Amino acid sequence: MEKYVKEMKAKPIDIEADKLVAIINTVDAKEFGLLPLDRIELSCPRTKRKVVCVVDTTTTMVREGTVGMFLDVQKRLKIKSGEKIRVHPVPPPESVHFIKKKLDGHPLNEDEIIAIVQDLHENKLSEIEAAGFVSAVYIHGFTLEETVAMTKALTGGGKRLQFKKKPILDKHCIGGTNGRATMIVVPIIAAAGYYIPKTSSRSITSSAGTADSMEVLANVSLSSKQIVNITEKTGGVIAWGGALDLAPVDDKIIKIEHPFALDPPGQIIASVMAKKASANAKYVVIDMPIGPDVKIQSIERAESMAKKFIAVGKELGMKVEAVLTDGTEPSGRAFGPALEAKLVLEILEGKVFDNLAQKSCELAGVLFEMLGEAKKGRGTGLAKEILASGKALEKMKQIIKAQGAKISESEGVEEAPLKKVIKATQTGEISKINVRQCALVARTAGAPSDKKAGVLLHIEEGDEVKKGQVLFEIHAENKRKMSLAVAFAKKGGIVDLEKVILKKFV
Amino acid sequence: MEKYVKEMKAKPIDIEADKLVAIINTVDAKEFGLLPLDRIELSCPRTKRKVVCVVDTTTTMVREGTVGMFLDVQKRLKIKSGEKIRVHPVPPPESVHFIKKKLDGHPLNEDEIIAIVQDLHENKLSEIEAAGFVSAVYIHGFTLEETVAMTKALTGGGKRLQFKKKPILDKHCIGGTNGRATMIVVPIIAAAGYYIPKTSSRSITSSAGTADSMEVLANVSLSSKQIVNITEKTGGVIAWGGALDLAPVDDKIIKIEHPFALDPPGQIIASVMAKKASANAKYVVIDMPIGPDVKIQSIERAESMAKKFIAVGKELGMKVEAVLTDGTEPSGRAFGPALEAKLVLEILEGKVFDNLAQKSCELAGVLFEMLGEAKKGRGTGLAKEILASGKALEKMKQIIKAQGAKISESEGVEEAPLKKVIKATQTGEISKINVRQCALVARTAGAPSDKKAGVLLHIEEGDEVKKGQVLFEIHAENKRKMSLAVAFAKKGGIVDLEKVILKKFV
Repeated sequence: MEKYVKEMKAKPIDIEADKLVAIINTVDAKEFGLLPLDRIELSCPRTKRKVVCVVDTTTTMVREGTVGMFLDVQKRLKIKSGEKIRVHPVPPPESVHFIKKKLDGHPLNEDEIIAIVQDLHENKLSEIEAAGFVSAVYIHGFTLEETVAMTKALTGGGKRLQFKKKPILDKHCIGGTNGRATMIVVPIIAAAGYYIPKTSSRSITSSAGTADSMEVLANVSLSSKQIVNITEKTGGVIAWGGALDLAPVDDKIIKIEHPFALDPPGQIIASVMAKKASANAKYVVIDMPIGPDVKIQSIERAESMAKKFIAVGKELGMKVEAVLTDGTEPSGRAFGPALEAKLVLEILEGKVFDNLAQKSCELAGVLFEMLGEAKKGRGTGLAKEILASGKALEKMKQIIKAQGAKISESEGVEEAPLKKVIKATQTGEISKINVRQCALVARTAGAPSDKKAGVLLHIEEGDEVKKGQVLFEIHAENKRKMSLAVAFAKKGGIVDLEKVILKKFV
Repeated sequence: MEKYVKEMKAKPIDIEADKLVAIINTVDAKEFGLLPLDRIELSCPRTKRKVVCVVDTTTTMVREGTVGMFLDVQKRLKIKSGEKIRVHPVPPPESVHFIKKKLDGHPLNEDEIIAIVQDLHENKLSEIEAAGFVSAVYIHGFTLEETVAMTKALTGGGKRLQFKKKPILDKHCIGGTNGRATMIVVPIIAAAGYYIPKTSSRSITSSAGTADSMEVLANVSLSSKQIVNITEKTGGVIAWGGALDLAPVDDKIIKIEHPFALDPPGQIIASVMAKKASANAKYVVIDMPIGPDVKIQSIERAESMAKKFIAVGKELGMKVEAVLTDGTEPSGRAFGPALEAKLVLEILEGKVFDNLAQKSCELAGVLFEMLGEAKKGRGTGLAKEILASGKALEKMKQIIKAQGAKISESEGVEEAPLKKVIKATQTGEISKINVRQCALVARTAGAPSDKKAGVLLHIEEGDEVKKGQVLFEIHAENKRKMSLAVAFAKKGGIVDLEKVILKKFV
């Protein structure tokens, strides 16, 4: 069919927008026979550049005969204000048909999934189209084949880390609470002579992410090249994944899932496995905490996901094992980046051996058994030996130094300038510690932005406490946030916390 | 819980955006613990105004401590650039949870559907959230109760037309082709003394909508008050519905359905019935063309939808009948606003009686039988009598005059300055006329923007034609579009059309 081409004028709008949108007047839209979310191709005769945009229509923002375009489109066309451009309608990308196919309940093949991920990567799909895809996947689920294809597609969109020596080990936790097992597992594994380049996230809604906590000790904004170099030098690295370009489409999908907290298992698995594949990992242990306040709330769901993780790993040539852990109680007594980092060092120094240390050794043990480094049932023991020998501490010091240390060895982790202790108002037994409430108090006190802010528990579940005994400390960097955290405690938060902690009275 | 409030500076961005969005730096987002699509409340201490916005984050567009806001948000806050505002995170509207509920496959109750529609109306939901709702409805469908609730909710969001006299009649066509049955049904019904205030749409992808075609004869951009006045004066009106505020949320839902051409039956029914309820209609006939190129492609689907239309009508106190019609052949020989209007007048004048005239009399007949104005099986006959008597023509003239005539009675509908006849290149029989191709040629020639542009068929299905005999005319208002239309014909379109028309050779 003969193309209907119109000459129009460019109207640059100096706003950054992560999508390729062209804004035209409704009069022009009608002449083209276009509705919002249809596509037009803009081409600049001078620069010879072309770009396909999603149409948005307006009655006021741009006049007839002009095309409004945000920075991203301007840059692609290398256009000047008022310059002439040629405009003609084009069909939507094929991926839109594949999304419709998924909405209709039909499984997608690998090429179709790659097309969708590719177009998400290049910002060719509108948010409405992307949301249609995410909703369809949530409702209809992914088959194993689709999950494998999605993992491959997500990996394909980004960089891959390349190491001289093999194998690469990795560890991942699905929706945990506090406690930085990664910062204990990595030095144990590296101390045994293996490579474990770990990329982690910052916290969004918890009191600290591994990247936040590691950042207290060392620089975590590392390039891919730095990660490879440090790994090849020390065996381990603990970096922030956000600065890299590993499986970048995953973040776009997560953004769309967020409003409804959609987390279709197939998508979670593809998301995790893509990041592992991007790091070229061959042996992966997955920590799956189960509990009412964490992502996975039943053993059935955890077991079903674990099976899929293993199956997807097999398809991708990766050996995966999943460990179901207790997500109902705190993982260590610290909440907040610096407090959690400090606890990690105390564990590595052999000063503390708590449930966090135990879990970390179990996770490292699983990797040792997968590798054949330890016999079945002996992995945890080996990890404990390495921990007790001080080799893991030495390794952690090497890693901190290689990443660029932020603390001096003599001074250790600095404490917060403000501390407040909260005491039991009654004698009783600690029946339950509400992990979510602990994290909320820590956040109110400033964590994770204020690195030293947080909560330090003085008790464990099952402890008997006397009236006046210290239950926990709140740490903060400034008075306003400390008073907010204390107020939160006094006006409900703390009372709630205390009530929960002291539910079973003697 | 104590609210975490931060004082920030307003940064107005003078861009119109149909959604309440606040743009903050990722550093601030992290401090608040916010992700894109979370909500914050902005309040201006000076104007005492508040508004809840969807959060979007940026690393470059606004600096730390400032909030970027589009025109809609600026107006609601009555804010000045650089002015201080108080910002704090708030939970998402309840409707987001109801959408999640629908995504999870649970039916929604009336209150929940009203909450969603209300928030769509007030732009409180992001496009991603709205798309989640539309996708969930598409996949899980609507129960009869949900369809009724949706109809009520859509009606509640807009204005209602109020008439002194009752009953109000109405007619609707689901995804038809060409042919303006409305412009024949309305004068027949009005000539019989009933009220039929019809609001119609403009065309988006066909060669003309009823509003486009009626606009050749009279003004169609009427206010609600004008529609009521003209109806009370003449009995009928044929107006453009887009200028009114009847069921406005419907348009937002249709926009989201568009990229995937999602048309869940429950949503179509709610959409149509809401517009009828807004017009206070009590007797409604629904024209449901069936064919491979129209919206409804099977008799089963049409029958299932017809039953639901009737059931929803019953719940809302409306009497509804659906008529299944032939959507496989053109409805009259004209394509394009002026050509279709001209054909309507010829039918009303008694000069032509074709399949469009027959269908129109049948639709009017159904209404007469529903009212008891004609006995069962006699409605079409009564409509034909009114048509033949010239009363429908007289009524149409009154309606045209009342709406503001655009043609003089002596001159009639003006023809296009450019015409081109397309002749048969072979002798043969017309086995099939491809309605979609006719519409595409008409659109290429300029329809519906160029009112006089279009296609006029000289043949019907089953006709035998000789080589050199005229098959159809292309009309256009300017040479460029005429040559595009002819080129479209010559380079594929016309050949296609011709091939289809002359498939069965003698």
